Amino acid sequence: MIEYADASPEIRAVYDDIMATRSLTDVNNFWKALATHPPTLARTWASLKQVMAPGALSPVMKEMLYLAASSAAGCQYCIASHTAAARAKGMDDAMHGELLAVLGMAAETNRLAETLRVPIDPAFG
Amino acid sequence: MIEYADASPEIRAVYDDIMATRSLTDVNNFWKALATHPPTLARTWASLKQVMAPGALSPVMKEMLYLAASSAAGCQYCIASHTAAARAKGMDDAMHGELLAVLGMAAETNRLAETLRVPIDPAFG
Amino acid sequence: MIEYADASPEIRAVYDDIMATRSLTDVNNFWKALATHPPTLARTWASLKQVMAPGALSPVMKEMLYLAASSAAGCQYCIASHTAAARAKGMDDAMHGELLAVLGMAAETNRLAETLRVPIDPAFG
Amino acid sequence: MIEYADASPEIRAVYDDIMATRSLTDVNNFWKALATHPPTLARTWASLKQVMAPGALSPVMKEMLYLAASSAAGCQYCIASHTAAARAKGMDDAMHGELLAVLGMAAETNRLAETLRVPIDPAFG
Amino acid sequence: MIEYADASPEIRAVYDDIMATRSLTDVNNFWKALATHPPTLARTWASLKQVMAPGALSPVMKEMLYLAASSAAGCQYCIASHTAAARAKGMDDAMHGELLAVLGMAAETNRLAETLRVPIDPAFG
Amino acid sequence: MIEYADASPEIRAVYDDIMATRSLTDVNNFWKALATHPPTLARTWASLKQVMAPGALSPVMKEMLYLAASSAAGCQYCIASHTAAARAKGMDDAMHGELLAVLGMAAETNRLAETLRVPIDPAFG
Repeated sequence: MIEYADASPEIRAVYDDIMATRSLTDVNNFWKALATHPPTLARTWASLKQVMAPGALSPVMKEMLYLAASSAAGCQYCIASHTAAARAKGMDDAMHGELLAVLGMAAETNRLAETLRVPIDPAFG
Repeated sequence: MIEYADASPEIRAVYDDIMATRSLTDVNNFWKALATHPPTLARTWASLKQVMAPGALSPVMKEMLYLAASSAAGCQYCIASHTAAARAKGMDDAMHGELLAVLGMAAETNRLAETLRVPIDPAFG
Repeated sequence: MIEYADASPEIRAVYDDIMATRSLTDVNNFWKALATHPPTLARTWASLKQVMAPGALSPVMKEMLYLAASSAAGCQYCIASHTAAARAKGMDDAMHGELLAVLGMAAETNRLAETLRVPIDPAFG
Repeated sequence: MIEYADASPEIRAVYDDIMATRSLTDVNNFWKALATHPPTLARTWASLKQVMAPGALSPVMKEMLYLAASSAAGCQYCIASHTAAARAKGMDDAMHGELLAVLGMAAETNRLAETLRVPIDPAFG
Repeated sequence: MIEYADASPEIRAVYDDIMATRSLTDVNNFWKALATHPPTLARTWASLKQVMAPGALSPVMKEMLYLAASSAAGCQYCIASHTAAARAKGMDDAMHGELLAVLGMAAETNRLAETLRVPIDPAFG
Repeated sequence: MIEYADASPEIRAVYDDIMATRSLTDVNNFWKALATHPPTLARTWASLKQVMAPGALSPVMKEMLYLAASSAAGCQYCIASHTAAARAKGMDDAMHGELLAVLGMAAETNRLAETLRVPIDPAFG
């Protein structure tokens, strides 16, 4: 992982933009690890900044969708970081509890539908 | 798959409750396939009904989270049925497009975080 | 996919052993597809024959475990072939229904445990 | 995580039933983490109790199937807890070894079948 | 899916760049489906173009790594498209056979390592 | 885990062959854990030795493909061991960076293709 003090100007430019966009005084470990390949660091941040910007969905809903995908993929770091981010953007205990309930049920019915090889209903388009 | 006409009273009771709750005139293939094991049919519907009921999260947000988990699990039937359900509950083209963008980015950064074995930041709690 | 009539002697030797071991008059599509790389065909069959042979676990239990792993991986071909094999080795409707119920619950609790980042209990060793 | 001493009466009722059903003097971390959302705690325990009850499959076989699904999903907590549970219900070293061998082969052939896009044999129904 | 004839100028600009970069006379279904959300279409193509450009790894090796990831994720469309692309860039039958053999073994040993909860060797850094 | 000093002659024979083939003075934890079921130890090593032997693909490319599959499966032990092995066989920082970039993009486009249910192009064969 590359700390700010040891980073090249190319890497520092990305770190600076991350900190300015998110009002932080340091970047997360994810970015410090990604900085070992500067083109991937720059491209990933540019993509993430665009995808998570306000739009038809609110910031807290986007973070909860990110968390849903991270949970299904079983990525421990991603679960931890996006739980913290969703909390910071307004996810309270009740919302988190219901999110978990939906993810659990989705996992259960996913397995059942896959194993039963359920044909897609014509009504689903 | 078990059609309504061929179903036992135990199975029909579940089908009737699904149709009444969702204002439908038939149940999806998922339930017809699950009916081959009536205890699992009854338990899954009871759980799903409780989990998807209105709460701290809106119905459309719950469907989009369900879709996020189904997408990450790669369940084709689940993707089709929950895309249709989310559409019915208010997901428009812009919301769907942003949902896809979040899921794609989450998949990408999940792989990067896993492969780099990024340690969890103390700030994430 | 390579049919028996078009197969080299090296491939036919594997096909013959599969048919003799399983009392079949043809091999499944899986083997015909694998035959495009003969070393992988021979190695995979040798491993499978050893792994699925009678042992501490009964043949039907081994097939149901195979089906459980295939279901969790979302492999449609594997689910279809190992459902058929488990049926042939004695899995009845009640056993299949309970298998599905276990797989569904396992999927649900897996997601909940991952997302809550539950620490492993010392008692689990 | 919520300890018994800090739990509400609603949560204690579930903890008491888990301990009585399983002859334990405390509940696992999984339940203590789930208790942050009491409706999900109660619903998950009710489902699990029904699914894991004796039936057409023996308790040890149900635990081994649970372990197979947890292994395929890569859930470390679930693997640890269901290995311990299967051991407690009668899984010996030879059974564990054969379980691992089946899961390993299933993972290998799943990947081969998916990547070769093997068409499902008509005989599988 | 949006065909070229029905596409907006914004979408056509991306389609034109894909066709020019890859010497094609039409774009794959993937891009036509992605075009329903133009910002995701443009960003994904920009990222993919940068990532798959010649570098320390050859184009055929990049395609085979893409195929390896798609196989492990069980994405049928991705397996089909990147098998075709890897073939076009020089993957012959022997290389494909060895790729499959590696993916199969990786899947098997991944499951064994996960289920045995093997501690990471200090030498791995 | 079973150390060399405590191993049976059957297990030692496998350990000896691993150390001789790889010019090591000890075997990794993976093999010591697998040794709890000697038939799986012997079969897995025999398969791995055959699969990773020189062929149409170079040793470093085989390790990078192994790493790609391990990353997609989210197996932390496998990612650590095959990153070390790929490094030992010639993967430098630039190659590792490009590998990560490909894996990240593959994960992203896999999710998009699955969720959009893109039909396979006829040209893919």
